[in-house]
Amino acid sequence: MSLAIQTPPVELETLVRDRAVGYSLAAPFYASQEIFDLDLEVIFGRHWLFSAVTAEIPDAGDYLTIDIGPYAVIIVRDDDEEIRAFHNVCRHRGSRLLKDACGSVGNIVCPYHQWTYRPDGDLIFAESQPDTFDKSRFGLNPVNVKVVAGLIFVCFSDNPPDDFDEVAEFLEPYLAPYDLTNAKVAHQTDLVEEGNWKLVMENNRECQHCDGAHPELVSAYFPLFGYSEDDITPRLRPVFERYQAARADLDRVCLLRGFPQEERRELDTRATGFQLSHLALDGAGISFSEGGAQLCKKLLGTMTEPRFGDLSLHLQPNSWFHFLSDHAVVFRVLPISPEKSIVRSTWLVHPDAVEGVDYDVESLTAVWEATNREDRELVADTQNGVMNPGYIPGPYSLVEDDVEAFANWYITRLQHHVAAFR
Amino acid sequence: MSLAIQTPPVELETLVRDRAVGYSLAAPFYASQEIFDLDLEVIFGRHWLFSAVTAEIPDAGDYLTIDIGPYAVIIVRDDDEEIRAFHNVCRHRGSRLLKDACGSVGNIVCPYHQWTYRPDGDLIFAESQPDTFDKSRFGLNPVNVKVVAGLIFVCFSDNPPDDFDEVAEFLEPYLAPYDLTNAKVAHQTDLVEEGNWKLVMENNRECQHCDGAHPELVSAYFPLFGYSEDDITPRLRPVFERYQAARADLDRVCLLRGFPQEERRELDTRATGFQLSHLALDGAGISFSEGGAQLCKKLLGTMTEPRFGDLSLHLQPNSWFHFLSDHAVVFRVLPISPEKSIVRSTWLVHPDAVEGVDYDVESLTAVWEATNREDRELVADTQNGVMNPGYIPGPYSLVEDDVEAFANWYITRLQHHVAAFR
Amino acid sequence: MSLAIQTPPVELETLVRDRAVGYSLAAPFYASQEIFDLDLEVIFGRHWLFSAVTAEIPDAGDYLTIDIGPYAVIIVRDDDEEIRAFHNVCRHRGSRLLKDACGSVGNIVCPYHQWTYRPDGDLIFAESQPDTFDKSRFGLNPVNVKVVAGLIFVCFSDNPPDDFDEVAEFLEPYLAPYDLTNAKVAHQTDLVEEGNWKLVMENNRECQHCDGAHPELVSAYFPLFGYSEDDITPRLRPVFERYQAARADLDRVCLLRGFPQEERRELDTRATGFQLSHLALDGAGISFSEGGAQLCKKLLGTMTEPRFGDLSLHLQPNSWFHFLSDHAVVFRVLPISPEKSIVRSTWLVHPDAVEGVDYDVESLTAVWEATNREDRELVADTQNGVMNPGYIPGPYSLVEDDVEAFANWYITRLQHHVAAFR
Ligand code: FES
Ligand code: FES
Ligand code: FES
Ligand SMILES: [Fe+3]
Ligand SMILES: [Fe+3]
Ligand SMILES: [Fe+3]
Repeated sequence: MSLAIQTPPVELETLVRDRAVGYSLAAPFYASQEIFDLDLEVIFGRHWLFSAVTAEIPDAGDYLTIDIGPYAVIIVRDDDEEIRAFHNVCRHRGSRLLKDACGSVGNIVCPYHQWTYRPDGDLIFAESQPDTFDKSRFGLNPVNVKVVAGLIFVCFSDNPPDDFDEVAEFLEPYLAPYDLTNAKVAHQTDLVEEGNWKLVMENNRECQHCDGAHPELVSAYFPLFGYSEDDITPRLRPVFERYQAARADLDRVCLLRGFPQEERRELDTRATGFQLSHLALDGAGISFSEGGAQLCKKLLGTMTEPRFGDLSLHLQPNSWFHFLSDHAVVFRVLPISPEKSIVRSTWLVHPDAVEGVDYDVESLTAVWEATNREDRELVADTQNGVMNPGYIPGPYSLVEDDVEAFANWYITRLQHHVAAFR
Repeated sequence: MSLAIQTPPVELETLVRDRAVGYSLAAPFYASQEIFDLDLEVIFGRHWLFSAVTAEIPDAGDYLTIDIGPYAVIIVRDDDEEIRAFHNVCRHRGSRLLKDACGSVGNIVCPYHQWTYRPDGDLIFAESQPDTFDKSRFGLNPVNVKVVAGLIFVCFSDNPPDDFDEVAEFLEPYLAPYDLTNAKVAHQTDLVEEGNWKLVMENNRECQHCDGAHPELVSAYFPLFGYSEDDITPRLRPVFERYQAARADLDRVCLLRGFPQEERRELDTRATGFQLSHLALDGAGISFSEGGAQLCKKLLGTMTEPRFGDLSLHLQPNSWFHFLSDHAVVFRVLPISPEKSIVRSTWLVHPDAVEGVDYDVESLTAVWEATNREDRELVADTQNGVMNPGYIPGPYSLVEDDVEAFANWYITRLQHHVAAFR
Repeated sequence: MSLAIQTPPVELETLVRDRAVGYSLAAPFYASQEIFDLDLEVIFGRHWLFSAVTAEIPDAGDYLTIDIGPYAVIIVRDDDEEIRAFHNVCRHRGSRLLKDACGSVGNIVCPYHQWTYRPDGDLIFAESQPDTFDKSRFGLNPVNVKVVAGLIFVCFSDNPPDDFDEVAEFLEPYLAPYDLTNAKVAHQTDLVEEGNWKLVMENNRECQHCDGAHPELVSAYFPLFGYSEDDITPRLRPVFERYQAARADLDRVCLLRGFPQEERRELDTRATGFQLSHLALDGAGISFSEGGAQLCKKLLGTMTEPRFGDLSLHLQPNSWFHFLSDHAVVFRVLPISPEKSIVRSTWLVHPDAVEGVDYDVESLTAVWEATNREDRELVADTQNGVMNPGYIPGPYSLVEDDVEAFANWYITRLQHHVAAFR
C-alpha cells in the first residue's frame, strides 16, 4: 500500500539551488535513496570512471569484472589485444555472464543456455532460435571504454563528456615514464565503507584530518599543508627549509629528465574534473614508508631517479592516484547504497619486480592499508552524524578547498540535470 | 523526508503495454518493489494458489501454516474432517495465532490474551469483553479453500477466478489413480532462492538449460526436447527409436487401464492457466533416478504398472507437479521480496510405504534436490543480470514456448488490473 | 527508476479519520515506513521524551549518548553541574562527536578535525578557518532538556508542549522521597524487540496478558485487575480481603508520612499524557520478587517503610516507571524501524547500597528481565500478525482502557498534525 503524507515533498531543484557555497552538503545528499539513485544515473551513469588498469588483464582473453553501483561490467582484452568493455549480462534472458573477479576465456559462454560470445562481443552461438534469428543483432551490450597510459576508463552514457580526450592528452606525458601499461599488479584490496560515496570522496579531498588520523601517512609528507611562507613560525622554520631543499631537488630532476612541471587544477570547471600535482616527499623522499624509504628495488617504467616525489592525480567523480618512482597506488570508490561504498585500492610495481626479492607486499601496502582503515572510521562517523536530524551543514576551512571543489563539481552536474527537465 | 525527483515516473500502464511479445520481461518486473507489491495484490492476491496436500494434515485438528508473501495462512482439518483455511491472525489485537509449521490442536488459542477459536473458526472465548460483545462477529478471518484430489488450493480474493472448477474437473480423473488424499508425506524442503518469483517460474518452464545444468534430471528424460522427427540426426536415431517404443508402451498401458490420454495446454488462455502432459521416461522408465529405476517399492494409489511415465502438471502462477507410479513430487514458489523467493518441495509416497524398507529418503529426493540446487544458482545469476542497467530483454527460443506462455499469462493479468483503473 | 502504480494512494487523513474508537489501529500504523517517519517527526520530534536519569552522569564532565530514532543526543553535565543536551553531531562537517554510550570529558573534541566544544556547547577551537569566522555561531546544536526529580527529558521541537511543567509540578512531591537525583544505577539493559514501538507501548499498557505470560511479575500483584467488588467470587474472597488489608496499610503509611495520595489519569487529554497510581503489592508487599520480599537492604532516598507498594507512572509517548521503597526501575522505548524497537531498562538503588552486600544484581533484575523477554515474544507475534493482509483491527476489552487511551492520545496528535496541513 502506498501512503500519501500531506507534508509536501522536497524538490531536488530546491535542494540544489539552496546549497550554500562553502558549506558541506545538506543531509539528503548523503542519505536519501532518491539522491543515491540520481547519483547513479547522473554522476556514475554519465561520466568517465576509472575502473581498472590494463596490467590486470595482460594477455588476450584475460578479463576482469567490476560492479559499479548496479552496473556490472566485463573488461576484456580481445583476440586483437584491444581492451573492450561490456555489460556483464546475457542478451538472451539476462543471466550474469562472468562471475569471477578475473580470469581468462576463449569465448564468453553464458552459464544458463550457453549463448556464446567472442571477446569482441559478437554472438556466435544461440541454441534453438528460429531461422529468422539474426545473431548480429544480439552481440554483447557494449560499454564505452578508453585507455590512458594503462588506466582503463568506462562510461555508461551514449553521450560521454567530450572533454575527456583533452584531459587525457594533458596527462599522458606525465604518466608515460611510469609505463603502467607494462606494470604488474602487486596487490589489490576492497574495503567496505559504511558511508555515502561522496563522504568517502570528501574525506580523500582534504588532509586537515591527516595529522590527527594518519600517523603513518603524514610521516611521508611535509607537515605544511595550507601554510604560506608567512605562516612559518620559528619552530617550523627547519621543516620549511627542508621542504624548500626537497622541492628544489625535485624541480631540478624534472628539468633534467624533461618531465613536465606544470601543475593543473581544474576540479570543478569541467565535466572531467581533475587535479595534477607533483609533491616533494619528506625524509628519504622516495616512497610511502616510515622515513620515506624505497619500497620496491626496481623502479617503475623508465624511472632512474628514486627521489621523484609523489605525482598525485585526483579525478572526479571517484578516483585518485599516487605515482611514485618505485610503485603506484590507485583508488576508486564504488557506490553500493546511500550508506555504503567500496574503496578498491591497487598497488603496481615494475613487471620484473619479484615479490619477496624486490618488494614485500606487507611493507609496500602498509601505509595506505592503515590510512584506508583510519579513513573508514572517520567516514562511518560522518555518515552517522549527517543522518542525525540535528546535523547542519558547516563551513569548509581554508585547507578544504578541494572538498569544496568536489562539492561544486557535483552540484554543477546536478544543476545541468535539473535544467534539462525545466 | 520525501523527495521529488523531476524525472517523470514510469507508468505501469506503459510498461505493460510496451512488453515485447516473445521477449523476456523488462527489468522492473523482476526487481522493483512496486511491481512486487502489485504481484502480491494482483497475482497472489487474486488467484488460486496450490499450498499444501491433505496428506500433511491427515487427522481432525491437524493443521499446517504457510506464509505466502505477507499472507500467513492456517490450513486445518476441522472436527468434521473438513479442510478449512484462515488468516493466521487473531481477531482481538492481531497476534499471529499458530507459530509452528504444523501440529495438532483441540482449539486454536491465541498466545496473547487467550481468545479461543474452534477449528471451524468460531470464537468461543474472549476475556473481559462487555456484555454487548457478539462472539459471532469475531470468528477467524476465512480464506477461500478448495481441495482437488488431495491438493489444497487457497485464494485470498473475495472474487476467486470462476474457471477453477472447470480445470479441477478436467484434472481429477488423471489424479484419482494416484490417490494423494491417502498418500504420506515422505519429505519436504524449503529452498531460499535469491531471485524474483517470476525468474524461478521461468526457469521451471523450460528445459533448454537442463542439458547444461541438470545431469541428474536429464538422465530420466529422453534428450529430445523440442525436436521434431525431421531434426533427428543419424546419431540420435537409436535414442529416437527407444523413445518411440517407450511412448507406445505408455499409450498402451493407459488404454489398458482406462487412464485418460488427452494432453492439454491452456497456459495463457485462462485465469487458471495450466498444462497437463504425460511423458514417457528413458531407461527403466519408472522414476526420477539414475537409469530410471523405481525408488519406492509400494506404488501410489491404485497404480499397478511401475513404468507409467511422468504425469506432469504446470499451474499458473506458482506451482508444478510430477506424478510417477511410485511417488509424486510437488512444488510451489513463495514470494519473499522482489529479489527473494522460497521453493517448497514435497515428496509423497503410498501411506503404507515404510521409510528404510520401501524407500530411502535420500535416494527418493536426490534428483530434485540436486535439480533445485542447480536451478537456484541459475536463478541467482539471472536476478543479478536483470538488475544490471545494461540488461535488455532478449528473445525466447523455440523451446521456451512455456516461458513465453507464463509471461503472457502474467502480463494479461496485469492488463486486466490496469484496465480496471482506466 | 520510480514507478507509478495507478492504485490511488491511501491518504493519512483518511486513515486517521477512519480509526475506529475502541479498536486496535489499522495495519499501516504498525508497519508502514511512511507512518514510521511521521511518528519520528510528529511524536518523537515534538514531545518530551524520558531519556535518562541524572544518576547516570553524577559528576561535571560526565556524559551519556542516546539514539532516539535518527536523533543522536549527548546529555552532559557541564562545568556548572547543569544538565545539557546537544545533537551528537559536529558543526563542521557533521561527524558524530561522542561514540561511547557514556564517559567523562573535559571538552568535547570532534574525532575528525578536532573542532573543540566546551560541555556547555560553546565552540572554542576550529582549525584553519578564515579570520572572519565567528566561533559563537557554531556552538553545539542544542536539544531542549528538563530534569524532573532526577529524570531527564529531552524535546527536539522548537515549540515543546507547554503543559510539561504542570505535569512535572504534580509529579515532583511524589518522586521527591525517592531522591533519584542521588540514586545509583545498579543495572541497565537494552532489549531489541521485533515490533513497532506502538506495539511495545500497547503491550505495556495492559495486564490482560500478564496471567498467561508473566508468572514472575504477577506474583507481586494482586490478581484482581479490572475486578470490581461485584466480581469477587467466593474463591477470590480471601485474596480480596488480603488486598483490602494491604491497601488500607498503604493508605495509612502514606497519611502518616505525608505522602500525597491522589491518583491521576490524564493519558489522552493532554500533550504530556500521563497516569500516576500507587498500588499495594501482594505477599511481603515490598518489591518485585517471588513473594514480594525486599531486594535491596538500603531503602531509596528518605524512605523508612519498606512496605510502600508500587508507585507506577505511565508517560506518553514512550516510557513507564515503577518506584518501590528499595529500588526503582524505569523504561523507555526507542524506535529503530517500523518493525524494530529497543526497550532500555534501568534499575536504581540507594547510592550507598553495595552490590553483593546490600543487593544482588541478578535478583534485583530477575522479574523485569523475565517480563521483558516474555513481552518481547508477544510483541514479535503481534507485529507478525498485523502485517498479514488478513489482519482486521479488533475490539479492546474492558481492562484494556489504557491501551485505548494510548491509541487515542496517538491519533489525537496525528489529527493535530493533519489539521495543520489542511
Ligand atoms: S540467459 Fe544467457 S543463454 Fe539464456
Ligand atoms: S491478540 Fe489474540 S487474544 Fe489478544
Ligand atoms: S567534522 Fe568535526 S571537526 Fe570536522
Ligand atoms: Fe584520510
Ligand atoms: Fe531447471
Ligand atoms: Fe507484559
